[in-house]
Amino acid sequence: MIRFECDYTEGAHERIIKRLMQTNEEQTAGYGLDDHCEKARTYIRTACRAENADIHFLVGGTQTNTTIIASILRPHQGAVAAITGHIAVHETGAIEATGHKVLTLPSDDGKIQAHQVKELYDAHWNDVTHEHMVQPGLVYISHPTENGTTYSKAELAALSKVCRECGLPLVIDGARLGYGLAAAGSDLSLPDIAGLCDVFYIGGTKVGALLGEAVVITNDALKKDFRYMIKQNGGMLAKGRLLGIQFETLFEDGLYYEISKHAVNMAMIIREAFAEKGFSFRYNSMTNQQFPILPNEVLSILGEKYSYSFWEKVDAKHSAVRFCTSWATKKENVEMLVNDIKALR
Amino acid sequence: MIRFECDYTEGAHERIIKRLMQTNEEQTAGYGLDDHCEKARTYIRTACRAENADIHFLVGGTQTNTTIIASILRPHQGAVAAITGHIAVHETGAIEATGHKVLTLPSDDGKIQAHQVKELYDAHWNDVTHEHMVQPGLVYISHPTENGTTYSKAELAALSKVCRECGLPLVIDGARLGYGLAAAGSDLSLPDIAGLCDVFYIGGTKVGALLGEAVVITNDALKKDFRYMIKQNGGMLAKGRLLGIQFETLFEDGLYYEISKHAVNMAMIIREAFAEKGFSFRYNSMTNQQFPILPNEVLSILGEKYSYSFWEKVDAKHSAVRFCTSWATKKENVEMLVNDIKALR
Amino acid sequence: MIRFECDYTEGAHERIIKRLMQTNEEQTAGYGLDDHCEKARTYIRTACRAENADIHFLVGGTQTNTTIIASILRPHQGAVAAITGHIAVHETGAIEATGHKVLTLPSDDGKIQAHQVKELYDAHWNDVTHEHMVQPGLVYISHPTENGTTYSKAELAALSKVCRECGLPLVIDGARLGYGLAAAGSDLSLPDIAGLCDVFYIGGTKVGALLGEAVVITNDALKKDFRYMIKQNGGMLAKGRLLGIQFETLFEDGLYYEISKHAVNMAMIIREAFAEKGFSFRYNSMTNQQFPILPNEVLSILGEKYSYSFWEKVDAKHSAVRFCTSWATKKENVEMLVNDIKALR
Amino acid sequence: MIRFECDYTEGAHERIIKRLMQTNEEQTAGYGLDDHCEKARTYIRTACRAENADIHFLVGGTQTNTTIIASILRPHQGAVAAITGHIAVHETGAIEATGHKVLTLPSDDGKIQAHQVKELYDAHWNDVTHEHMVQPGLVYISHPTENGTTYSKAELAALSKVCRECGLPLVIDGARLGYGLAAAGSDLSLPDIAGLCDVFYIGGTKVGALLGEAVVITNDALKKDFRYMIKQNGGMLAKGRLLGIQFETLFEDGLYYEISKHAVNMAMIIREAFAEKGFSFRYNSMTNQQFPILPNEVLSILGEKYSYSFWEKVDAKHSAVRFCTSWATKKENVEMLVNDIKALR
Repeated sequence: MIRFECDYTEGAHERIIKRLMQTNEEQTAGYGLDDHCEKARTYIRTACRAENADIHFLVGGTQTNTTIIASILRPHQGAVAAITGHIAVHETGAIEATGHKVLTLPSDDGKIQAHQVKELYDAHWNDVTHEHMVQPGLVYISHPTENGTTYSKAELAALSKVCRECGLPLVIDGARLGYGLAAAGSDLSLPDIAGLCDVFYIGGTKVGALLGEAVVITNDALKKDFRYMIKQNGGMLAKGRLLGIQFETLFEDGLYYEISKHAVNMAMIIREAFAEKGFSFRYNSMTNQQFPILPNEVLSILGEKYSYSFWEKVDAKHSAVRFCTSWATKKENVEMLVNDIKALR
Repeated sequence: MIRFECDYTEGAHERIIKRLMQTNEEQTAGYGLDDHCEKARTYIRTACRAENADIHFLVGGTQTNTTIIASILRPHQGAVAAITGHIAVHETGAIEATGHKVLTLPSDDGKIQAHQVKELYDAHWNDVTHEHMVQPGLVYISHPTENGTTYSKAELAALSKVCRECGLPLVIDGARLGYGLAAAGSDLSLPDIAGLCDVFYIGGTKVGALLGEAVVITNDALKKDFRYMIKQNGGMLAKGRLLGIQFETLFEDGLYYEISKHAVNMAMIIREAFAEKGFSFRYNSMTNQQFPILPNEVLSILGEKYSYSFWEKVDAKHSAVRFCTSWATKKENVEMLVNDIKALR
Repeated sequence: MIRFECDYTEGAHERIIKRLMQTNEEQTAGYGLDDHCEKARTYIRTACRAENADIHFLVGGTQTNTTIIASILRPHQGAVAAITGHIAVHETGAIEATGHKVLTLPSDDGKIQAHQVKELYDAHWNDVTHEHMVQPGLVYISHPTENGTTYSKAELAALSKVCRECGLPLVIDGARLGYGLAAAGSDLSLPDIAGLCDVFYIGGTKVGALLGEAVVITNDALKKDFRYMIKQNGGMLAKGRLLGIQFETLFEDGLYYEISKHAVNMAMIIREAFAEKGFSFRYNSMTNQQFPILPNEVLSILGEKYSYSFWEKVDAKHSAVRFCTSWATKKENVEMLVNDIKALR
Repeated sequence: MIRFECDYTEGAHERIIKRLMQTNEEQTAGYGLDDHCEKARTYIRTACRAENADIHFLVGGTQTNTTIIASILRPHQGAVAAITGHIAVHETGAIEATGHKVLTLPSDDGKIQAHQVKELYDAHWNDVTHEHMVQPGLVYISHPTENGTTYSKAELAALSKVCRECGLPLVIDGARLGYGLAAAGSDLSLPDIAGLCDVFYIGGTKVGALLGEAVVITNDALKKDFRYMIKQNGGMLAKGRLLGIQFETLFEDGLYYEISKHAVNMAMIIREAFAEKGFSFRYNSMTNQQFPILPNEVLSILGEKYSYSFWEKVDAKHSAVRFCTSWATKKENVEMLVNDIKALR
């Protein structure tokens, strides 16, 4: 069985594993204060063109979102997010567990638009009973989204503008950020992202690392005491070097971009194969996740050799499913899948 | 200006005020352990035909909902509610502040149906990623709802059945319970409610009292340590007698029902006046809240003498608004309003 | 049985009850936005000589402390308090329930001193692992304390100075503030208190009201969105007038001071009676709570006619107990008690 | 500089690193559902002689303690712990952040005794105001403690007995469990621990792994929905295999015990060197942490070549410090240190 169900089926990029081996006997300070973390911070600041950004390394996505959001909000405030957003759906209520409501906006493709935020903000403040409702306190988006879609530079700039006008920090979940930056047709760079939001994170777990997410805080007002928040939320590893070494490897010479590009290339090959066969897609994704809508018999045939994720039922005879590639996807596996798609009747 | 905007514009029923004066110099034990509270408990148990129920007196609705829900749920569980439910919309995230998500179900009239609960429950447990999502832990409804609508006995029995099959305690917010029991055409009695749910509360604030809500816990499994929860949530009044005296007065001889009926009667008169004039209603309410859809010029004319609540814009020329009656509504004021409605062109 | 066990055994001052009756039929706006609340705010600002203070009315002490503290702290911060402080001991973990640790300082008499705060603050920041520990975020004291003791003006000024140097808001729990202001030998006025702390509350429940505490926020930085916090914590009464009317009555012409003074006078008479008989006291209280250390047989004799609170065992033959007076204490009851004390062998 | 300051200065045991490399290209299921996790679970169940235990792998100690404790307690309950306990002091209030107070017991050496738990339990339930106080809901201990001390089998059995009598689950923090099991003179085995408590964890981070803690739940009543709790608390790694592979390696053939023993042996050599020189110790530790009390000039001399942790000031001329060994400590470094100790005047 060849796994296309998600983008975390293998270990880490081999250069990371090698680096772990090479550095294994070094004695370092704990809790993210070692030289590897320091180097990784420097590389990331450079990559973001954000000299003054604070960089922190955390363990996983749920923890990172929770730590960032809990650090920013006051008790009566909530996080505005797409109804499909990871924090709204797939984190077992971790945000609520810190006391905050997720204020959801409708979205079909995972994205939210500037005007939606403005309307929600205005609706709150224009309501005479606003003190009886959760106050919007920040805006959370994912880039790329959980559905593989991406924001254009213009869209992100518009969101950023509205957020700043409303005094709402803009937080970007970059669990798959590499795949968003490498997306076909994307005009957004890492410095663009750093410049347009207040806090974001660069996902490692799904892009070459064993685990780890790099938080980048560009808004000075949100930097204070963040390490306390990391500790309280269980993200301060005794052996913080494990995270530093990985991000050092990913960012010292562009490995992060290179392997992200590979994953997107592999996804585009799969996409074309489905498209040529006449299948449509649930979302218009140019990233590593593809969501073809397939007849049940096709799912059955492909399911014999390949694992994929069920996404949603479309009608009695069709379902949308997810095929994921990653930095680790092997070209020969993609070719085999493509041939099997071509061979479908 | 005559106020019809809500059902808490006056103080308390005069018998309550008198009783407060008469008992004022009594020395009593604190924290709800006095004789007045004890008598009130006995009256309420009798009224509910629930000999073994635990009865507690709390201060207000938000606090009561929060205390009940936080007492029942484990951290990874949420409260299922209508998207219009008070806990979902109008409690400034109090439920989330105790760590729990409100899992909303669509509803146009404020009610939820048994099949919706079953579908949400099944959808959760059938999803392979259910551990990544908030688990439904109880079902919350309001009777009457925030929109003045009521459950029939059959509807409530069906909800109760599903909840018991799914192991979900059923919690009823009875902030306006009296007005629901007195609703035109309602076939639900207080013992019905006590028998069909696991915890509910009998609202005092909006039905004759200065403040206070009486929690009735009929499910033995939910009784343990509830007084700790009241204290932690700020609901344990040093002078608990204040609550006991009020519920004693309301339940010793049926005052609660009598004044509820008065409010509903007044509301029906207003309803008929609007209906006769050809206006339609946003919700089909047979309780003390009426939601006529009125043209802007009518709102303007009535607004000169009467206060009402804006509810929602229907189109450029019409809005739905709320006219409330209560135990304190004076017949002469209702008649004046009716005459003014009749006089509308 | 005559109750001296606590200071909340009766209802409210008769002028309050009368005012409730007189105003009962008035129609007012809800949620603390009525004219009675507004007047009460004006009277309190004047009494505090704090023109710009924000004044809010809440229900009880636990709720008030929780709302204030949760409003001020970030998630990694804690409230510094005496180990005997109400928030540390007697609120069923309400502060922790909002996510915050109570950082306790040793205290025998219920007070904490400026140097203790400074030492704790320095110890935190000098510790290399401070990010692994809860950061002190505010200082909470009670005046008078749970043990009836009071701060002198010099002591409070010293505390205030340290707090401001350390950037720690100073919060004063004034559940019994009237009795502190009326304490024999006290040199602290209400304006002194308003000027030296950042937030405090004036207790009504124990000083003449049925219930209610008036929060005074003098520090501009702590004013924002406090009404949201009240609502979330269940303190925003629909009939907020109930609180406004009471504080209006207490502060329109000095009733609050007058009845506080009465309680302290009564307490001093009891104190002298015990002292003359040669009994010592657990705490040196000049307020309405007295803590004589009495032999078991004396407790037994007095216990036949009077209720008091057990405080702590001193040795096999003696216990410290609490006798409380209040605004409602009747002189004839005190005289009877004094005679019975005198009659002890 | 040779680091003896803590037990997490190196990476992981070389067999773990090798295994990570060997398995790197395997495609596995996510979230701890892979074969490596399954194998590790089997090995651990066998090692604990606890066939029915649930085993879960989490990331770090703070997260593990928080997840376990939040999973067990109701909102009004607290965790009983030594005043020196990790959850009481060094987790930035993570337990409080989930809403629960840590109820501390005095302890000089980090241990608590059965009678202390019984006394606290009785004191709570005998207090007439117990509903106003946090209810003890579980007992938390560390073995070995933060001070390197260990429980004897008799002590742990006594604690266990009291906990079961009081209905308080006993939770053991085993961040350094290997070093406790290997302690000179210890009569406690892993099956003893599994049998005497309700939940415990086997620390990996400090005993051979890069990161990771294995939770063992032996009490059936505490097993339900634990994976939801892991996810909510950020402990469910997408690449759960990273934890499974490590515990598989540590427990497939006794590596965990072997490397723990090595660390303790190294610590005993250092201990003897200090003892022979006449220095005393702050705690009587037979585990990998040693706490000699040393004169300032000795600290200064040793500090030129070795890093250690400052623990506490003893008097103007002496401080207690911590020297740690670990699975990774090199014999030649210990010998060098011993020689330098011997060479002290």
